[in-house]
Amino acid sequence: MLEQNLLKAKEAGTALAQTKTAQRNDILTVMAGLIRERTPVILQANQLDLVHAEESGLDTPRANRLKLSPDKLASLTSGLLTVAGLPDPLGGGRRWTLPNGLVLEQIHVPLGVIGLIYESRPGVTIEAVSLALKSGNSILLRGGREAQHTNRVLADLWQEALKSIGLSPSAVQLLDDPDRSLARELMHLSGLDLLIPRGGASLIRTVVEEATVPVIETGVGNCHLYVDAAADLDMAVKILLDGKMGNPSVCNALETVLIHEDVKDAFLPRASEVLRQYGVAWHGDAAVLDLVPGAVLATEEDWLTEYLGLHLAARVVGSLDEAIEHIRRYGSSHSEGIVTNHYPTGQRFLAAVDAAVVYWNASTRFSDGNEFGFGAEVGISTQKLHARGPMGLDALTTIKTVAFGSGQTRDF
Amino acid sequence: MLEQNLLKAKEAGTALAQTKTAQRNDILTVMAGLIRERTPVILQANQLDLVHAEESGLDTPRANRLKLSPDKLASLTSGLLTVAGLPDPLGGGRRWTLPNGLVLEQIHVPLGVIGLIYESRPGVTIEAVSLALKSGNSILLRGGREAQHTNRVLADLWQEALKSIGLSPSAVQLLDDPDRSLARELMHLSGLDLLIPRGGASLIRTVVEEATVPVIETGVGNCHLYVDAAADLDMAVKILLDGKMGNPSVCNALETVLIHEDVKDAFLPRASEVLRQYGVAWHGDAAVLDLVPGAVLATEEDWLTEYLGLHLAARVVGSLDEAIEHIRRYGSSHSEGIVTNHYPTGQRFLAAVDAAVVYWNASTRFSDGNEFGFGAEVGISTQKLHARGPMGLDALTTIKTVAFGSGQTRDF
Repeated sequence: MLEQNLLKAKEAGTALAQTKTAQRNDILTVMAGLIRERTPVILQANQLDLVHAEESGLDTPRANRLKLSPDKLASLTSGLLTVAGLPDPLGGGRRWTLPNGLVLEQIHVPLGVIGLIYESRPGVTIEAVSLALKSGNSILLRGGREAQHTNRVLADLWQEALKSIGLSPSAVQLLDDPDRSLARELMHLSGLDLLIPRGGASLIRTVVEEATVPVIETGVGNCHLYVDAAADLDMAVKILLDGKMGNPSVCNALETVLIHEDVKDAFLPRASEVLRQYGVAWHGDAAVLDLVPGAVLATEEDWLTEYLGLHLAARVVGSLDEAIEHIRRYGSSHSEGIVTNHYPTGQRFLAAVDAAVVYWNASTRFSDGNEFGFGAEVGISTQKLHARGPMGLDALTTIKTVAFGSGQTRDF
Repeated sequence: MLEQNLLKAKEAGTALAQTKTAQRNDILTVMAGLIRERTPVILQANQLDLVHAEESGLDTPRANRLKLSPDKLASLTSGLLTVAGLPDPLGGGRRWTLPNGLVLEQIHVPLGVIGLIYESRPGVTIEAVSLALKSGNSILLRGGREAQHTNRVLADLWQEALKSIGLSPSAVQLLDDPDRSLARELMHLSGLDLLIPRGGASLIRTVVEEATVPVIETGVGNCHLYVDAAADLDMAVKILLDGKMGNPSVCNALETVLIHEDVKDAFLPRASEVLRQYGVAWHGDAAVLDLVPGAVLATEEDWLTEYLGLHLAARVVGSLDEAIEHIRRYGSSHSEGIVTNHYPTGQRFLAAVDAAVVYWNASTRFSDGNEFGFGAEVGISTQKLHARGPMGLDALTTIKTVAFGSGQTRDF
């Protein structure tokens, strides 16, 4: 069924790949104008989705992710303008000449057609599409059922923006998928250049395991903060609070805190007092139970869990090495942090921890395309190939080497 | 069974990742010295493999790929020194500061442990390993049974080189796999950071389809040369000859020539006369049959086949668009070439053909890490993600973003 969609998307993408930078930027600025102009219509559609969500008993975190507000839309609009203002990721890169005079140039070109499977958040329909179009790609969107009315309005606006500057609307296609069969079809759609799953761990696992098209794994974040013996404890409490409570339902939120035993007595009572006001439940080892009132004993499962909610796992460790080993064993290679004022300890942590982003005296919550200065993000890659960490424009391009000759051969 | 190998390789890799540039270069220069010193031993082992190959009836192209000579070893040794002299792919890259003062730096780090499944060519045991070690990775080698004695000597020399400068020999491990069970195990070895298949189409297809570890697809090259109406026909004949006969058994060899109808009468008789001396069999469409004595009618299968031998498919086309469409339909996105002196035609071909390397007035035979100036290659990627075209040192690294803070939070 999707072959026709793919074919149209390929054609639209081929045209898009040939456009000048200014024309691709125009799509985004026109879209920003349309969002401002049609804010009431977007919010009305969003309201409809929210009512349905309430009727169908959608849990609060997902309902929160679904909700748009005038402020949220304004921030998404300003993201569009930021992306429009970023350098064009397409075009010539490294250029070199072989001894025989053959000139090679590595050109950054679009991947082609990108598929995106995502849940709840309608903001993705603005952010991810802006990056896809700016980098000259077409995109097939398979959004969550719960956001369908909002997504439909937004996708229509994208098509309106494309048409208004003479480009094919097929570069952005929202797939209507009531029975989830199209999500599965996307995973096996031969010719699709990249499929990105954004959402919960089970969605991502399914896509990574089942897909036969190229996939970039995103977003499961079992993130740790290690509070070292030489930590500034005021700073550690502040970073822990930000990491846990800034937005507990996102992948860069903290799930486990590891505390050096030398500072457990000074740190844990203070940290637990601050987090208690927010209703955070602690799951700790025996040493933590002694110091945090109301904590329950953590199980192996707790170390492995991305709570995405008001729970925190906590463990006292005897050394930096023990902390590193815990992260190696249970982490998801997303974002990991250390708080320490001891320079060699910080350096060793940064070098030894194998994750997309590693923080020294800062919150893991900065793992975000917007915060990184990418204007938006198409997801946060937790794999090592192609892209790692927040994915901006570059992640949606590939390289083509073009060779300009004058009859060169290898003269066998 | 391979879990222990992987664990040791990980440990060795962790140490390797922390070495200084000079130390990793030393491994390669020591290896170059060892190859020079032990050339007779290497050739003796190779002779043993060649005798076995003859006894077991290995076909000539594979036997040729298996054979080492003093000249070939000298060229591999000089490749080692070239790689040693290349810039270190590890270390800091882009560095930027967020408005709140948080400093981000993208560090190039090794992938970790790389698996390589390859056939016949023992030179790979020198080239691929040199790139892996220079970029701080460990490597598990699963070479072809037919090259086992040669590979064993070379792998032992690598381990000797590693030990001589105080590094763990486990960074290079040759897997003995008499019943091919380890090849399969590698495809599912959780924790392996990258698996690269190098060899025939069926090996590559099996690995790409079966593997659950990250894979980079390499090397199937169904390469085309389009001889345009505005081609310099002397140049076209020379490029066709080089592409077909430079080394017919490799992936950058030409398999199909497309000829604009305006030049078919001038080009085909000359081209066929030159190639006849080498015993090349032509498979052509009706127009080709009229002009090439002895040509047989091409079938759909011919357009799709990577002959890797003394066969050539040929088709007369009415336009550039028809040539582009043929390549889009039958090409393998490896290397494609055009011969033309008409500037807009060349430009359109470079822009429209979607392949790793696209040549204008030059032989496709330059798609090779050595020719590109990479000193060696770990394979030629025909996929779009992570690496495309000849893979040098950069293809074996990933990025880690490190963040240097002073207590920054997002202050929700």
